[in-house]
Amino acid sequence: MENILPKRKVYDRQDAYAKITGKVKYVADLKFSGMLYVQTVRSPYAHARILKIDSSEALKLKGVVGVYTAKDVPGKNQLPKDKPVLVEEVAKCMGDGVAVVVANTKIQAMKAAKLVKIDYEELPAVYDPEEALQEGASPVHGDSNSAAGHTTMKGDLEVGFAEADIIIEREYSTQRAMHAAIEPDGAIVIPEANGLLVYCPGKGPFNIKRAVAASCGLNENQVRLIQPTIGGAFGGKDADINVIAARAAMAALITGRPCKMIWSREEVLLEGTKRHPFKLKYKVGAKKDGHITAMEIKGLADVGAYISKSQATIWRATVEATGPYKIENISTTIVGAFTNNVYSDAVRGFGSPQVDFASESLMSELAKELGMDPLEIRRLNAYTEGSITATGQELTGVNLIECLDKLEEVFPCHEKPAPAPKGKVRGRGISCIFRGEAMGAGFPIKDAAAVNIHIEKDGSLVVFSGIAEMGQGGSNIVLQMISEVLGVSIESMKMSPLDTSYVPDSGATVGSRGTITSGNAAVIAAQDAKDRMSKIIAEKWNSKLEDLVFENDTIFTKNQSKQISFSDAVTLCYKEIPGVYGYGWWSLPSVWWDFEKKCGDTYASFNYGACGAEVEIDLTSGKVEVTNLVAIHDVGRILNEPEVKGQIAGGVSMALGLALTEEVAIEKGILKTTNFDHYLLPTTLDFHQFKAIPLEAKPGTNPLGVKGVGESSSATVAPAVLNAIEDALGVRIRHLPADLESVFAAIEESESLGYIKGGVRQN
Amino acid sequence: MENILPKRKVYDRQDAYAKITGKVKYVADLKFSGMLYVQTVRSPYAHARILKIDSSEALKLKGVVGVYTAKDVPGKNQLPKDKPVLVEEVAKCMGDGVAVVVANTKIQAMKAAKLVKIDYEELPAVYDPEEALQEGASPVHGDSNSAAGHTTMKGDLEVGFAEADIIIEREYSTQRAMHAAIEPDGAIVIPEANGLLVYCPGKGPFNIKRAVAASCGLNENQVRLIQPTIGGAFGGKDADINVIAARAAMAALITGRPCKMIWSREEVLLEGTKRHPFKLKYKVGAKKDGHITAMEIKGLADVGAYISKSQATIWRATVEATGPYKIENISTTIVGAFTNNVYSDAVRGFGSPQVDFASESLMSELAKELGMDPLEIRRLNAYTEGSITATGQELTGVNLIECLDKLEEVFPCHEKPAPAPKGKVRGRGISCIFRGEAMGAGFPIKDAAAVNIHIEKDGSLVVFSGIAEMGQGGSNIVLQMISEVLGVSIESMKMSPLDTSYVPDSGATVGSRGTITSGNAAVIAAQDAKDRMSKIIAEKWNSKLEDLVFENDTIFTKNQSKQISFSDAVTLCYKEIPGVYGYGWWSLPSVWWDFEKKCGDTYASFNYGACGAEVEIDLTSGKVEVTNLVAIHDVGRILNEPEVKGQIAGGVSMALGLALTEEVAIEKGILKTTNFDHYLLPTTLDFHQFKAIPLEAKPGTNPLGVKGVGESSSATVAPAVLNAIEDALGVRIRHLPADLESVFAAIEESESLGYIKGGVRQN
Repeated sequence: MENILPKRKVYDRQDAYAKITGKVKYVADLKFSGMLYVQTVRSPYAHARILKIDSSEALKLKGVVGVYTAKDVPGKNQLPKDKPVLVEEVAKCMGDGVAVVVANTKIQAMKAAKLVKIDYEELPAVYDPEEALQEGASPVHGDSNSAAGHTTMKGDLEVGFAEADIIIEREYSTQRAMHAAIEPDGAIVIPEANGLLVYCPGKGPFNIKRAVAASCGLNENQVRLIQPTIGGAFGGKDADINVIAARAAMAALITGRPCKMIWSREEVLLEGTKRHPFKLKYKVGAKKDGHITAMEIKGLADVGAYISKSQATIWRATVEATGPYKIENISTTIVGAFTNNVYSDAVRGFGSPQVDFASESLMSELAKELGMDPLEIRRLNAYTEGSITATGQELTGVNLIECLDKLEEVFPCHEKPAPAPKGKVRGRGISCIFRGEAMGAGFPIKDAAAVNIHIEKDGSLVVFSGIAEMGQGGSNIVLQMISEVLGVSIESMKMSPLDTSYVPDSGATVGSRGTITSGNAAVIAAQDAKDRMSKIIAEKWNSKLEDLVFENDTIFTKNQSKQISFSDAVTLCYKEIPGVYGYGWWSLPSVWWDFEKKCGDTYASFNYGACGAEVEIDLTSGKVEVTNLVAIHDVGRILNEPEVKGQIAGGVSMALGLALTEEVAIEKGILKTTNFDHYLLPTTLDFHQFKAIPLEAKPGTNPLGVKGVGESSSATVAPAVLNAIEDALGVRIRHLPADLESVFAAIEESESLGYIKGGVRQN
Repeated sequence: MENILPKRKVYDRQDAYAKITGKVKYVADLKFSGMLYVQTVRSPYAHARILKIDSSEALKLKGVVGVYTAKDVPGKNQLPKDKPVLVEEVAKCMGDGVAVVVANTKIQAMKAAKLVKIDYEELPAVYDPEEALQEGASPVHGDSNSAAGHTTMKGDLEVGFAEADIIIEREYSTQRAMHAAIEPDGAIVIPEANGLLVYCPGKGPFNIKRAVAASCGLNENQVRLIQPTIGGAFGGKDADINVIAARAAMAALITGRPCKMIWSREEVLLEGTKRHPFKLKYKVGAKKDGHITAMEIKGLADVGAYISKSQATIWRATVEATGPYKIENISTTIVGAFTNNVYSDAVRGFGSPQVDFASESLMSELAKELGMDPLEIRRLNAYTEGSITATGQELTGVNLIECLDKLEEVFPCHEKPAPAPKGKVRGRGISCIFRGEAMGAGFPIKDAAAVNIHIEKDGSLVVFSGIAEMGQGGSNIVLQMISEVLGVSIESMKMSPLDTSYVPDSGATVGSRGTITSGNAAVIAAQDAKDRMSKIIAEKWNSKLEDLVFENDTIFTKNQSKQISFSDAVTLCYKEIPGVYGYGWWSLPSVWWDFEKKCGDTYASFNYGACGAEVEIDLTSGKVEVTNLVAIHDVGRILNEPEVKGQIAGGVSMALGLALTEEVAIEKGILKTTNFDHYLLPTTLDFHQFKAIPLEAKPGTNPLGVKGVGESSSATVAPAVLNAIEDALGVRIRHLPADLESVFAAIEESESLGYIKGGVRQN
């Protein structure tokens, strides 16, 4: 691969100018003539039977075109996998969509939505996943609230704990959180002569298209989706976008007019999917020297009212729950329970941040109990080449020690922080992780992407990639790979909009799979175009194929005896062949997994990471400032350094919120966090000293050698920060987020225990 | 090929419902938010130097955003091949665009256009092509008004005329005519992040894209064209659409907003291209038995102010000018002259209707002089298998005699018509033609089309074809071919909109090349998809590839032991391969042509046709009713009988206008025909007894065996009708159209000569 990609030139993103100058159009900016606005009417109850829907008052309002309910859904009233387009009989959580109002203006639709009178019969409900699984709990679906469950077993737990010199048990829990993309979810659906045209910023455009086709009773070829610019996804723009697109599509099909539905921030909070709250009980046994002999993990996730992708999320959490450690005896069981809370689904990290928070808090707790250095206990147990995971997979290309070495080099993890000003205390914490790449065995589908290149007659290029550009820079990587192989400047290329009519289906842009799959596909596509052109040029020149060099928008022979500009070469080729193009398709190798025996290979490859955090805590307010943060990530090969650093920074920022401030509060099924004034996002002001370190150690197993870092970067921060808080206060917080209240409580405990006296750390 | 296409099921057009119910959106129907309207300011003079352009009053008008002139053109101020986007120094004909006004509304733009003050200096001008070529004529471009000229020579003219028993000389002329699509030309151009999006109903979408790119100084990949539904083209929607798209693109690029320009009917008449008026002098020598011994043809076409595609039009006229007859000694020279008239360009038939009118009038005149039957003289001289054309091409697959036989069978060409009521006279006339298929040697480009098929995961299909659907039914033919090869119902297919982003470049839909090129490409694409699926199915079933049958949305083995629905088969295939698709590309064979020696093969294949017309002429008004018309066309193989009959009927209707009513009058460069009230189109009320007969004789040389009939159908009618008028009146009209005035003059002459007495035909 190195010889195909000899240089590493870094390019600005093509979409940067338009985004910075505000010229870019998001779906909310789009208007079409005759367009109607669609507003959802939602259940105010967590569990309630619909007795009667009276639309008469709403329909009297000026500008109202129609009110539609479940019985108007043209096709199958079920989105993947179980959420209905609109509730038929029973609303299963607060915010469940019961009807849609369609009107000429947004204001009219919103007013009319309030006039739709729905009579409900409230039903018994469950809000706590533990209660939900108890005998006699009111079932959300069918007979049981058992929604998902995965187990891994390795060795003999009894033997392992018997070997241990010390056994500790701890319980951790994580919060319900949201994606918090600045762009809320929305869609516009336009009826066309023979189907529907959907404008919709989804990260799985082909999945949305299929969801719309099914819910509208159309063939797949009757639904075309064009992706407008996406204003961030962070694991979202997925299940919620299906809901929105299906409702707007239904309205468009019935009214015959373009229909727009953009959720407000409040609606995103109310009906949008959330990150799974987890409760995780860990029991770990270790020798005095720190070697772990056994680990038992029992977990419970709140699935909420619909299953969606909870099975896969919990599967990932289960297979990664031990952290990146060599342990002979393991038992992990994580189950998911239906409740009458808003449903949980994919959020950046997809189960990893929850278990990584727990296992990495645990490792520091174990180190403390053993009086060991937190880095040393990790190094001692860390996965190395040939280690066997909890599911029996033999690891290759392991770069964990390299991450820890780098952490030791750049972060003073063995030293105490400098004393804080009075009234403040400082502490340091670390963490490390491993994470399976891409979809893995939890999603038994072909994990592939395709890139097509069309070269115009004037030598300019149009590139078609199915990987969604959500702000992560995925398009730029594809263009860069093509530029490197074909030797053409990135300025002569254009990334086509993502349109399901002609962009190759590359699955959803999830699981940190974008660069691995589309980067490799892009190289293959460019090589395909290069081969096609080389054959013609070599024949004209009577040269050998391998003597041709594509560089600096020129093609020349190695001895430079002949040369032609790239655009002239294209003109030449068009005289011989119908089109100058390149097709590339690349798939991750399939992994072997035994769903019966719960063992096998979970992912084709893994990446590793380590984090060091220093905090300064204000003892009066409980405010935690992260004063230094180092995020080291095993990226295989760096394709574009600013891009990968940017992606790490983004993950860290999201994880800071997870560690300290973000939580969607629900009390007895009723949403309490209704807008960003209560859902506190970190800003650039919360970043102090920060270093993103993409680490090149052993390359990934794919031809490009890259690894995906989109999600890993959001998984290491919370445990490192909470370990730092423990270091500062001597008191452990085991629930996320470590918000002002819980930190303040920990300060009080710390003071009562004498760890802090007179505003000064004592140890 | 027969075994690939065993049955001939006829399908309704997919776009029929939307068109009939008015749901279809034409470019004029499209609106985009923030859209501006662009209006052209034009020269009122036929030849004038621009001294000063004062936009100040226009710019003061409310809603006016800008006034732009040639100096604002962002790229090259030249459209293919010579017309500027906006005139720089000298307007070369009335209607030449000098400036554009851009405003918030159409009305504002129109008002403001009138306020742009332009000072002109009138220049000497030429209006008559003969005068234009004379020494000392004021040149339109450069030094000379000689714009184009082609010659063919065969045998020895002197020898040929010496052998003749009779020599006659006649002069014919044809009018300036327009395309008269009901939808006038227009475009909307939208600035996008990295280029322009063009909505534009052009028949050569990739050509327009390239014209816009060049005139805007953009790369080709920065211009994307989406073709809205086309409301008819008839040879138009070509050069004029380039003009409109380039002006709207210029405005969009400057203002950064969507810009719309739709020409009014008056504007189409004023600035739009027209059919070339021809003057043709024929000298023909024949033996007493009717055998033609020599033919000399001298022609002159009015090119108007810009060359555009005049060279190719005149080339086609030159090589077809003799008509379909075996003649040993030929000299044909047709030249084109620049004048300060509106410029001439492609109109359905592209030079053929003009020469066919002349040569077929001549044949009937010669028959009359020799006292022969008009059918017999044609039969005697007609091209047959192995005949050598004027350019030395040996013909194969000749079906002219078959057309004449059919004419004799269905049209009473040897009998006199039944006597007309008093005050009316009746007559009968015939004609026959040959016509080169597709682009031929006059356009030395690859004459190819491509069709791509994408099969969705649910088994529904999306088809991509670069051939424009202009109302002729080209899309339906492509779908039908795929349906026949893959055995899937046409209802499960969708023809993708023509979008240059992803539809394969298939050249312009001109030259009657649509079905030949895209029909064959469609079969290849479908076979490609079939092969791809067959390989997988055959392996699963352990069957031989050749034992698989695709029929009735099912795939089964010949012995019917195994079967699977088409959609299940697709699902199966998706598990094995990344995509289920088919690519097809088919090109007409290149023709050998010597541009130096003016000889060689003009077209890869030819089609033939014959026409019989009966007219009834009102002696009081001069009104000619075509009371019976039979149009026989050699179509190779009939793919879809209603479609091909419809296409013939359309051509006949257009040719009826050419024969009798349509003319764009220009006097000294000044347009006199300003709207449809003066430009008289035939309607369905002008059709009496009419029969379109697509004739299957020897198939075409392409795999499908089809021939193109889009233009031939418009070439036979005028001479047949004018021969019938001559038959009725005994007086020959040699200028098109035979309008009320000229027919009335002929009636007066006929009466003065005694051919008609007391309102009754005497012979």
